[in-house]
Amino acid sequence: METEFVHWLLSRIPADPRLEVPPGDDAAVLRPPAMRRTVVTVDMLMEGVDFLLGPDCPPEAVGHKALAVSLSDLAAMASRPEAAFVAVSLPRHGGDAIGRGLCEGIGTLARRHDVTLAGGDTNAWDGPLVVSTTLIGSVAPGKAWRRNGARPGDQLVVTGPCGGSILGRHLAVQPRCHEAQAIAERFEVHAAIDISDGLSIDLGRMMEASGTCGVIRLADVPIHPDAHRLAAQTADGESPLDHALGDGEDFELLLAMPADAARALVAAAESKAFGPAPTIIGHVEPGAGLIAVAADGTRRNLVPRGFIHDFDS
Amino acid sequence: METEFVHWLLSRIPADPRLEVPPGDDAAVLRPPAMRRTVVTVDMLMEGVDFLLGPDCPPEAVGHKALAVSLSDLAAMASRPEAAFVAVSLPRHGGDAIGRGLCEGIGTLARRHDVTLAGGDTNAWDGPLVVSTTLIGSVAPGKAWRRNGARPGDQLVVTGPCGGSILGRHLAVQPRCHEAQAIAERFEVHAAIDISDGLSIDLGRMMEASGTCGVIRLADVPIHPDAHRLAAQTADGESPLDHALGDGEDFELLLAMPADAARALVAAAESKAFGPAPTIIGHVEPGAGLIAVAADGTRRNLVPRGFIHDFDS
Repeated sequence: METEFVHWLLSRIPADPRLEVPPGDDAAVLRPPAMRRTVVTVDMLMEGVDFLLGPDCPPEAVGHKALAVSLSDLAAMASRPEAAFVAVSLPRHGGDAIGRGLCEGIGTLARRHDVTLAGGDTNAWDGPLVVSTTLIGSVAPGKAWRRNGARPGDQLVVTGPCGGSILGRHLAVQPRCHEAQAIAERFEVHAAIDISDGLSIDLGRMMEASGTCGVIRLADVPIHPDAHRLAAQTADGESPLDHALGDGEDFELLLAMPADAARALVAAAESKAFGPAPTIIGHVEPGAGLIAVAADGTRRNLVPRGFIHDFDS
Repeated sequence: METEFVHWLLSRIPADPRLEVPPGDDAAVLRPPAMRRTVVTVDMLMEGVDFLLGPDCPPEAVGHKALAVSLSDLAAMASRPEAAFVAVSLPRHGGDAIGRGLCEGIGTLARRHDVTLAGGDTNAWDGPLVVSTTLIGSVAPGKAWRRNGARPGDQLVVTGPCGGSILGRHLAVQPRCHEAQAIAERFEVHAAIDISDGLSIDLGRMMEASGTCGVIRLADVPIHPDAHRLAAQTADGESPLDHALGDGEDFELLLAMPADAARALVAAAESKAFGPAPTIIGHVEPGAGLIAVAADGTRRNLVPRGFIHDFDS
């Protein structure tokens, strides 16, 4: 029963000095850190769209992913996560076990990122599992990375290899929160976005917001081993590079940085503090849209590809 | 298509000085009001559980309800609403029109309560409509009403009549935000909760949290005309009083107040600034549970009744 589940849940949440009123009341009351802005992101994951519950994807994995995608949003804003809220529609049949697994997955990742679980809303219904995560973070005034700040001459940096996340990484998302804060402390960043829907589509969004043109050197795009495996497994003509450019859910960060900062970041990267392998993949020019540069130097327009939620028209 | 819908949505959201980074980035950045705590509530509504889309319940009504239930939570914390975030799973078929209607309903109520729409997450799927609202508010340190502060000797006050909300009021929720702030400014309140699941079950929650016993004088419970209509329409033996005690979704506030403050509130109530008709319905005693007092003075244990989300066991 929900009440029993909620009692179980509340009993497992440790006290946290950031909360003036802990979970269990009509709302939670947070003590916002002094001299910081409040950063908020919400993400909804639905069974059948974002995950398929089963042996490869237990509720714990869903909980991990639900919090991880929100953490990735805060990473893309160079913000420090503080408090999470989880609203959930649990299937009436088996919902108790699903809810507990979900909480385990969320709780484990929350501890790793020093996030306090501050509240939520638990519901049961005859539909599939739906999880909506609200993550509250903080950042110094004026210091949040925006997606609209890229400038001609900036270098484009991605924090790790892309493509093929569907083979498992889309569940085991490693949000780049620590890496983002380490980068923000040492390097100038003009614009940032996390790669949730696909490298090319998310770069396209950054360029559109910035009023600039993104130029990608195809030979420099870091391709994840999963993209090679996926291309080898499927006969749809998609190359590993196609997967790196168009698959979603990589959750690496894409940054536009002044050229010297980008080079310094790549040079400093052997410690992994800035992502598995920050790589310069191109630069920003005046104009609009995306351009792909082949190994022989020829340029062509690149149509952004990635995951888009469609309506029937 | 989602992107078009999101562009439409973003173009309709007015700028607000509370936002350092407006909707459309990876997260929103809020300027928290100085010397205030941050109050956060999340609520998820599901088609088929909380509403049935149809002629009596267009998407606008769902949008209204989605924000209203969260506003009611902040009212129960004596907090001022500031910014709302809406995550939604829209049915793939017809989702565009539903999304636009939803936004109209949310936007109209948001303007009435000076809430800025600061972000969200839009998804499409083959399932029913799911809406998750996150509402951020603010309150002075230590001034949030809790549900655990009721003390023996307190009077129990309800801000308006209860029962029969299913006849329409459950959609046209009027959250008591302005009333709560007017009460908080002038009167001492020891504990508060909003009546979302039913007067008796929500009073039971307040008493459990406070470690006290709630005594209700049945003759003093304000019964909404809808409760009389519902009792007349149905042949299940439920009286208007049963509906007032057990129906959910009244969204009035239930307050535990020192006796003199409760009497002063009722005396001051002709202006409607404190709810349609704040009424003293009982008092708090040492002990646990709920007691109902009949017109002839006899006392019996009252089993809390109301809406609970059940799992199959």
